[in-house]
Amino acid sequence: MSEEEPTPGSVRPGGRTARTRAAVLAATFDELGEGGYGELTMEKIAQRSGVHLATVYRRWGSVERIICELMIDKSADIALPDTGSLRADLLGLASGIGVFYAAPRNRRVMEAVVAAAVRQPYAAEMLRDFFRDRRREAAVLVRRAIERGEVPADTDTDAVIAALGAPFYYRLLISRGPIDQDLAETTAAAAYEAARAGVFRHPAADAGER
Amino acid sequence: MSEEEPTPGSVRPGGRTARTRAAVLAATFDELGEGGYGELTMEKIAQRSGVHLATVYRRWGSVERIICELMIDKSADIALPDTGSLRADLLGLASGIGVFYAAPRNRRVMEAVVAAAVRQPYAAEMLRDFFRDRRREAAVLVRRAIERGEVPADTDTDAVIAALGAPFYYRLLISRGPIDQDLAETTAAAAYEAARAGVFRHPAADAGER
Repeated sequence: MSEEEPTPGSVRPGGRTARTRAAVLAATFDELGEGGYGELTMEKIAQRSGVHLATVYRRWGSVERIICELMIDKSADIALPDTGSLRADLLGLASGIGVFYAAPRNRRVMEAVVAAAVRQPYAAEMLRDFFRDRRREAAVLVRRAIERGEVPADTDTDAVIAALGAPFYYRLLISRGPIDQDLAETTAAAAYEAARAGVFRHPAADAGER
Repeated sequence: MSEEEPTPGSVRPGGRTARTRAAVLAATFDELGEGGYGELTMEKIAQRSGVHLATVYRRWGSVERIICELMIDKSADIALPDTGSLRADLLGLASGIGVFYAAPRNRRVMEAVVAAAVRQPYAAEMLRDFFRDRRREAAVLVRRAIERGEVPADTDTDAVIAALGAPFYYRLLISRGPIDQDLAETTAAAAYEAARAGVFRHPAADAGER
């Protein structure tokens, strides 16, 4: 599966690049299925992917950069529901996150990114920006709920989505227990009840009423 | 500040051990105030503390073990309130956590422990056990609220405390934003409203009523 020295014109550069990327990400994901982040090396990734070590270094530079790209790639699998009710939408999203992290490999990818972020500023930035973008996308669930009058109009949509996500990362990184449907249900219900009660209204608007 | 070769009988062994420990933890905390976990070494800790490098290695073995001990030491500063109302107790606890993590050094200690836990099983165990014990202590807030009839009798006390803590670790490790009083107030109110609404009732008890 070497991608070195293709016959000129026989392979589109974009196609080869995409295949190299897919092979490296798949190999990294497989390695994480067998061992933790601590055992992961560029050599193992190169060997498993069939991509030359020099190519892997040139393109990614470090295990951490591959891990970051893998997280972005994998997280795209979590869908945003549109059921017509906030309660069901939040439960759908929470269940999606729950199913995602029920897979040990996905847990390890996220753990590895968080650990990388502690040591590498670019990983910290990537992590922060990626989650900010994901929350922005998911905020549509709350905006629709505002339009339907299910939650106060001045609800901080980002805060609701952050509240929905937080318990999964607490379970994953701090209490280190299983991520299951129970957690998804409790988390979704907690975010819903708090949003309904007006807990996530923008502080400024809230202060104006005092 | 060398702690080698004391005159026999002039220093109580317990006293010397305690002083060595205090010097090493203080030096580690100071180092984290100046740089991140990535820059921390046993050599820097030994130099700053005035404790011999060999002693530091013999007693702790790794930077990670010192960091774990430091976390346990520092977190003891967060007090458990007893105001007579769950809402105020949760706000008091959340404010304590908020003030704690408003200090950049405390954030770095926690980040370092989480990163260590990804690579070192003993750090993962230590982290999990420490937070389990802290939640057990804090559960008294919820038990008192059950006795006062503020929340359902079958409320999962651990789940309430985990819900109160989770947003701080999400902010610290994932969204990587400031930890402030706004977050403490929102978090406390969210946990309170969800607990009042019965979100944290034990699943078994809940299932029995379906």
